[in-house]
Amino acid sequence: MKKQSDTKMLIKNARFIVTQNKKREIIENKDIKIVNGKIESIGKGFKNDDETIDAKNKIVLPGLINSHTHSPMVLFRGTGDETDLHSWLSNSIVPEEKKMNKKKVYYGSLLSILEKISTGTTCYCDMYSFYNSIIKAVNETGIRCFLSTGLKDHNNEEKIYDEIKKSTLLIKSIEKNKNPLIKPVLALHWTLTCSDKLIENICKDNKKNLPVCMHVSETKKEVEENKKLYGKRPIERLNGLNVLNENFVAIHCVNLSDNEIDILAKNRCKVIHNPASNMKLSDGICPVVKMLKKGICVSLGTDSAASNDNLNMFEEMRMSALLQKVVNSADAITAKEVFDMATVNASKIFSDKIGSIEIGKYADLILINKKDITINPINKKRIISNLVYSFDGRVSDVIVNGNTLIENYNFSTLDKDKILDNIEKLTL
Amino acid sequence: MKKQSDTKMLIKNARFIVTQNKKREIIENKDIKIVNGKIESIGKGFKNDDETIDAKNKIVLPGLINSHTHSPMVLFRGTGDETDLHSWLSNSIVPEEKKMNKKKVYYGSLLSILEKISTGTTCYCDMYSFYNSIIKAVNETGIRCFLSTGLKDHNNEEKIYDEIKKSTLLIKSIEKNKNPLIKPVLALHWTLTCSDKLIENICKDNKKNLPVCMHVSETKKEVEENKKLYGKRPIERLNGLNVLNENFVAIHCVNLSDNEIDILAKNRCKVIHNPASNMKLSDGICPVVKMLKKGICVSLGTDSAASNDNLNMFEEMRMSALLQKVVNSADAITAKEVFDMATVNASKIFSDKIGSIEIGKYADLILINKKDITINPINKKRIISNLVYSFDGRVSDVIVNGNTLIENYNFSTLDKDKILDNIEKLTL
Repeated sequence: MKKQSDTKMLIKNARFIVTQNKKREIIENKDIKIVNGKIESIGKGFKNDDETIDAKNKIVLPGLINSHTHSPMVLFRGTGDETDLHSWLSNSIVPEEKKMNKKKVYYGSLLSILEKISTGTTCYCDMYSFYNSIIKAVNETGIRCFLSTGLKDHNNEEKIYDEIKKSTLLIKSIEKNKNPLIKPVLALHWTLTCSDKLIENICKDNKKNLPVCMHVSETKKEVEENKKLYGKRPIERLNGLNVLNENFVAIHCVNLSDNEIDILAKNRCKVIHNPASNMKLSDGICPVVKMLKKGICVSLGTDSAASNDNLNMFEEMRMSALLQKVVNSADAITAKEVFDMATVNASKIFSDKIGSIEIGKYADLILINKKDITINPINKKRIISNLVYSFDGRVSDVIVNGNTLIENYNFSTLDKDKILDNIEKLTL
Repeated sequence: MKKQSDTKMLIKNARFIVTQNKKREIIENKDIKIVNGKIESIGKGFKNDDETIDAKNKIVLPGLINSHTHSPMVLFRGTGDETDLHSWLSNSIVPEEKKMNKKKVYYGSLLSILEKISTGTTCYCDMYSFYNSIIKAVNETGIRCFLSTGLKDHNNEEKIYDEIKKSTLLIKSIEKNKNPLIKPVLALHWTLTCSDKLIENICKDNKKNLPVCMHVSETKKEVEENKKLYGKRPIERLNGLNVLNENFVAIHCVNLSDNEIDILAKNRCKVIHNPASNMKLSDGICPVVKMLKKGICVSLGTDSAASNDNLNMFEEMRMSALLQKVVNSADAITAKEVFDMATVNASKIFSDKIGSIEIGKYADLILINKKDITINPINKKRIISNLVYSFDGRVSDVIVNGNTLIENYNFSTLDKDKILDNIEKLTL
């Protein structure tokens, strides 16, 4: 992988640039100049640079952001189907996770990154253990990653400080690794596996104002258990602990009362919606439309491939729109709102330097061939609709931080066949 | 295109053959011998033939069957979003359809066939006007098509015989065309556009026992209108006309009473489920699980790309499973049941020679590269799950009636770029 500081690139004469800037402009027939991993200028007639991509038949978008996943769990894909979250966890996932090790996490991460980048994801937020293996995979591929490890004390006070230490160690590992594409976030595992004390410690001792992600209100059973154990619904319980603020990122939020939606809005919490996983595990339907109306920032994730079962953010966008439409109304959510969820809304959680094509932002870009069947017929008016509702996700080029990860459908940094051979050996 | 009678082909050493035979066997490392467009034998060590496909790293499946679509409407993709069926029809589709012509229908059909075959569909049932242009496109591509034109008299008695004549002319055109891959089916447009008399005429004068497809109970408004105009819900109205039998194919069936489900079951009617379209237009959720429990044969369609917006039957399978799970339970429907809906269940409507890999069946086969990212990790136990829940649909080879339509990801009979250039001229 080239060093970021060496990067100088020109995307020449792009047919369409879907900027996702404040005006949501779609620019035609312009160049994008990239210097040192950032977008330096967008204009016309720039001179050719070291590396030039002819984009006259391409559509350029900001790379999509997968706000929530557990990458290595792609190894469990195709196992443990047709069960709800609680049985799925106890009967399929926990037994499989007991067999996880560094090597499996490394190759699982690589397989998941192959799928992510080939379907236009340039940045993801991961939550898993054996995080040094994830760091290794991310280093080798050049994708952008916000990394966490899920803390859980199972209400055992003795475990709290060991858990907190895990996060400290993760942050140290990331600092020591010195790859600017990997940044830490904090993660509390779940309302049923974290004590009040652990939650308070992590949220209130968050001096760096990192995002604190937590699985919240994924199932009805979880809500009932919280009521039984703490006398409150999950978001009400967290509110009672005074831990809800703009750093708090609630993952799932499928089963919320109207009062809980108001609490999330009032405290400027962020929400991550994972429609396919919620559907497959029959968790229920996240009240996305209600939350957007209240001004809550909702972004989009695939969750793991063990419950999705793919990691294609284009499919996730389509799924989220269709699901909200069928339970609300055809105009309840628009393609534009959903496209925001996979780009600029996620940037509000993780980094204001990603999610749009604007001067000064990181050059995290994906290119789509205008001759891709699933995006035709194409013109300026139809682009966002076709991206969300019909495009299959097969991008032609992927650039992260000014470096090419996919060039004309070929992986630049990864050896797909070798990874798949190793995956076969590990999972047979 | 080669003539079917010339075809002789060997698929050598297929890693997995997902047969969809009665025992739903998945066979490993065997050959498939194809003679005159049909599967002659499945075994081991056959001698190489004229055309041999090395399949040692491939998974072979029966080609998927898209039971309901309006192919040329792919030209309207990306227009008319975020509206319910009734406004979508009046404000977007009807005005666009007034501008349709032979050329547009021809190129629309070709674009839709590009997408269908590249995502593993080898057979589809079409309903549209300008059917001679569809016939031309199907002839050129070599896909299998059951073709109909939707009859509608808008309750105007004077129009009935003109409408009936349309079907007679369609059947004559298909006979005259002499392509054995195109067969006629009958189509009544919709319960709100067909009079009792037209329905009775078509269903009761069906001497060839052709399938009679009809849009039924797609929206709540349609049900209310039927109650207002005929004093009955749609299926009850059709039952009162004595037109329901095993030839009757009800498309959509989103809004059904329990009594109507019983009527469909008792009369051995078939149902075609189109989940993505129903979701996008906010029609409601088809009670697939209830119908399967009653023994009703439910098959799967994409509907048109104007309301889906893709034509990928792998995505449609996933969508149908996830939608039933989220509104019922995680075990309400299985990957196997959904895979049946896209293969053998459709064969019960259209032809007993398609939908499975068995001796004597038409050689309509699709091949998937075992190294496709979205189907890994792969082994015999995970195959069906991965096909339904994670595979992106990108097949490597497509064979219809023993002829190759896609070979190693390249179209054998179609010029993709030329088709897209023409589409651009027609839709700008």
